[in-house]
Amino acid sequence: MSEPRLESYLQGRWAVGTQKGSPLVNPATEEVIAWTDTSGLDIGGALEFARVRGGQNLRDLSFKERGKLLGSMREALHGAREALIDSAMLNGGCTRGDAKFDVDGAIGTLAAYAELGESLGDVDVLLDGEGVQLGRSPKFWGQHVYLPRRGVAVLINAFNFPAWGFAEKAACAILAGMPVVTKPASATSHTAHLLTKVLVDANVLPEGVMSLICGAPGELLERLASQDVLAFTGSAVTGRRLRQHPVVVEKSVPVNVEADSLNAAVLGPDAELGSDLMQLFLRDVVTDMTQKTGQKCTAIRRIFVPAATCDGVIEALKERLAEIVVGNPAQKEVRMGPLATQQQLADVKEGTRRLREESEVMFGGADQPVKAVGVAEGTGYFFPITLLKSRDSAKSALVHQHEVFGPVATIVPYDGTADQASELVARGGGSLVSSIFTDDKKFLKQAMMGMAPYNGRLYLGSGKILDHTFGPGTVLPQSTHGGPGRAGGGEELGGIRGVQHFMQRTSLQGYRPLIEKITT
Amino acid sequence: MSEPRLESYLQGRWAVGTQKGSPLVNPATEEVIAWTDTSGLDIGGALEFARVRGGQNLRDLSFKERGKLLGSMREALHGAREALIDSAMLNGGCTRGDAKFDVDGAIGTLAAYAELGESLGDVDVLLDGEGVQLGRSPKFWGQHVYLPRRGVAVLINAFNFPAWGFAEKAACAILAGMPVVTKPASATSHTAHLLTKVLVDANVLPEGVMSLICGAPGELLERLASQDVLAFTGSAVTGRRLRQHPVVVEKSVPVNVEADSLNAAVLGPDAELGSDLMQLFLRDVVTDMTQKTGQKCTAIRRIFVPAATCDGVIEALKERLAEIVVGNPAQKEVRMGPLATQQQLADVKEGTRRLREESEVMFGGADQPVKAVGVAEGTGYFFPITLLKSRDSAKSALVHQHEVFGPVATIVPYDGTADQASELVARGGGSLVSSIFTDDKKFLKQAMMGMAPYNGRLYLGSGKILDHTFGPGTVLPQSTHGGPGRAGGGEELGGIRGVQHFMQRTSLQGYRPLIEKITT
Repeated sequence: MSEPRLESYLQGRWAVGTQKGSPLVNPATEEVIAWTDTSGLDIGGALEFARVRGGQNLRDLSFKERGKLLGSMREALHGAREALIDSAMLNGGCTRGDAKFDVDGAIGTLAAYAELGESLGDVDVLLDGEGVQLGRSPKFWGQHVYLPRRGVAVLINAFNFPAWGFAEKAACAILAGMPVVTKPASATSHTAHLLTKVLVDANVLPEGVMSLICGAPGELLERLASQDVLAFTGSAVTGRRLRQHPVVVEKSVPVNVEADSLNAAVLGPDAELGSDLMQLFLRDVVTDMTQKTGQKCTAIRRIFVPAATCDGVIEALKERLAEIVVGNPAQKEVRMGPLATQQQLADVKEGTRRLREESEVMFGGADQPVKAVGVAEGTGYFFPITLLKSRDSAKSALVHQHEVFGPVATIVPYDGTADQASELVARGGGSLVSSIFTDDKKFLKQAMMGMAPYNGRLYLGSGKILDHTFGPGTVLPQSTHGGPGRAGGGEELGGIRGVQHFMQRTSLQGYRPLIEKITT
Repeated sequence: MSEPRLESYLQGRWAVGTQKGSPLVNPATEEVIAWTDTSGLDIGGALEFARVRGGQNLRDLSFKERGKLLGSMREALHGAREALIDSAMLNGGCTRGDAKFDVDGAIGTLAAYAELGESLGDVDVLLDGEGVQLGRSPKFWGQHVYLPRRGVAVLINAFNFPAWGFAEKAACAILAGMPVVTKPASATSHTAHLLTKVLVDANVLPEGVMSLICGAPGELLERLASQDVLAFTGSAVTGRRLRQHPVVVEKSVPVNVEADSLNAAVLGPDAELGSDLMQLFLRDVVTDMTQKTGQKCTAIRRIFVPAATCDGVIEALKERLAEIVVGNPAQKEVRMGPLATQQQLADVKEGTRRLREESEVMFGGADQPVKAVGVAEGTGYFFPITLLKSRDSAKSALVHQHEVFGPVATIVPYDGTADQASELVARGGGSLVSSIFTDDKKFLKQAMMGMAPYNGRLYLGSGKILDHTFGPGTVLPQSTHGGPGRAGGGEELGGIRGVQHFMQRTSLQGYRPLIEKITT
């Protein structure tokens, strides 16, 4: 084989396994582009090296200084932006727009956390809230503080965002004072590998702060310890497996799971065709269905539309979806690429077949041949953009249970009340994000109260912000990302909140002047 | 059998199972005092009743109004204080002082959360932090909010604090807006049953807000749903079983585990015999070893003493321990009762035998006959107060791994440096609380930085607060309670922090005026 073998970065050295390993392919052309293998690599030793060297190196720095590290990481990645974009296009089936979304998301997240670090200042203890008098005497005082956990942050990332997914977790962990060991999805590890190489070559991080496992995880889970943190983005099934792992359970290792979920969009009864509100709704739905070929954990899968406006909405969506050119991202006119892997394609096909048991195809569908430009017919993991419509909303079940991780979404008509919308959204069992498109305050308040407990984030689309939003599918560093139940029950980002997940909150109790002395 | 059968309170009705069930005994006399049985009871129906009726009834109230419910609960329990104390003495092996500790702990916790509810005001949304501008335009705005989860809070409590353990969890859940189903440890459910009866008879809570499972849990776990919360206090082994339960994992049910741990006390090198600091240390150690017969999850198990002062400290402790009269709590002069159950006694015997593999007996020990006043010789689950001393601190292992849940603690000499103290404390793998007794600022800062990541709470003993503290073993509503790793990785109380564990944090994104309108 002449394709490169992607090395792992462990204990401050690049190394590759002793076997041939697994191939990475270009999903548009099905050509092998590289290989990964980790057999024989000392994963346990790498974790311990990170804990001991990386941990001490980070704890020697203040929040402000750790923020500076993130700023240097941002700068290094910005300098390699074009190469990273090319890598994502080659290995991820990404259009240039999709690739920029991933790479610029990473750069922006690092920038936001660099700024947060700066604002926290030259301190080594993070205070949590005000101090409080504990007894009858003002001498006995309580103060909660956060300090970095003394382990390693193990970051297991999904295939769809090799750059951004890394940056979300790593920015929080490093600012908190925890070294990171990243295990990207093997299939798209080309970009994660390049990103690590850029950071290592730029020499911006102290020894032990960053490691990369490129390929199979080996004994990664077996070697976890009680001060480690496991942060995972991916399927609900893998999330469950991680959470039930005997070592994870035995050592109470915190597991932050961010799993794909059945995100909903609710169109309010006040949205009229042609209005700014409707424009925003249509644009956000089309973006979520097609950006990254629908392979976003935040993408809208269920679209709740008042029965009265349903036909008009479907026509308007079809019109917009028909404009999207599908094909090899290497071609300039292409606006949606293939799915990332052969397995993804098989899963999307099977999932769409299941959804069709209780819905009708409004647009696309697996029966349609995919017209993919720039590749030979039958080559690449392409799937048509597909819009379905539920046959009977009241009885709908599969649409709330079965996620199709591709360019597929289902319209579910509802009666236009916030109560029914909330009840239908809740059937999803917990989502990362749902959207409410309305300018009606009463509807909004009621839908918010009904939907918030089932969602980690609520995006409130209003005609007033038509040109000011990023859409529900974009994860912002200032807002938490994660969701209850089916979405994994985890949480990331949200400014300082995401940092705290990598720290131990400890309640201090004692003599007030002494506590004030040691915490400032 | 003529002893009462303790009923469960489910779906707003008292009910008992169809079988004879299990006996509750007086651990001082070994007499059976009651029976529990839940066979045939509809646990799944009770959970659903709580979710639907109790949840709606609580969500119809503001924080302030829910705080008032807690105030009424406090008042009802205060009115039944003597009966509750008698119950704890009868069923728990508690001295009157131990029983008051439990019952007054419950009353105080409810009072603190009633006050917190009042301070939150007549609102139904809890804001989390300030709002933040999300894009270039000030129109696109973010605000994090907390809303009550739409499930039931299942509270599984330990045998040692039937009143306080309930109140800690229930106060937070009810203030959050979640109904509770309590499952107390069967062996000491006499007090939990009485407490529930007092609250039901006082008619202070809306329908569905409170339920009690008195006896075996039946299909409690199998019927959990994704919006529920499971809060558990008890052994690490049971905590693990709960966390690995297939339904818990499948539905991402949050599990808050508060497990017993190897809590440490570190005596600073500046503590001199006869000083206020030393007085505080000796008093806290003796209290923790003997209060509740050492059956406190927060009790000091490992005592780190500078080698230079070790002999003097041991002599002083022996003198104080020798003054404690052990026996039937029904006798006035008794200051320490029996262990709570026969199983506890067997575990403590076996655990002490194990610890002795690497330590010497300084006081007590299982070879000594227990002189228990007020009971016939050989009756009751009594164990002698036992102080051990590690043979070789550097090689010590069992003392950091094996918790003996009784009146047993081990002295571990150390070199007087904060570094060695921290390293030894960390060997416990995570504790609920550890103490540092020093007035030396430099030692304190260093020990705090080294120990905090391994502890949910640090009690900083100073000579200055000799008469102003409650000791490390007392859980205060203002401070978080829980700890990393071995201690279960959970967290309770800490004012509003404990309430938030029963709510979903949701990030709102949208048009600023609309967000401000629906959240205030």
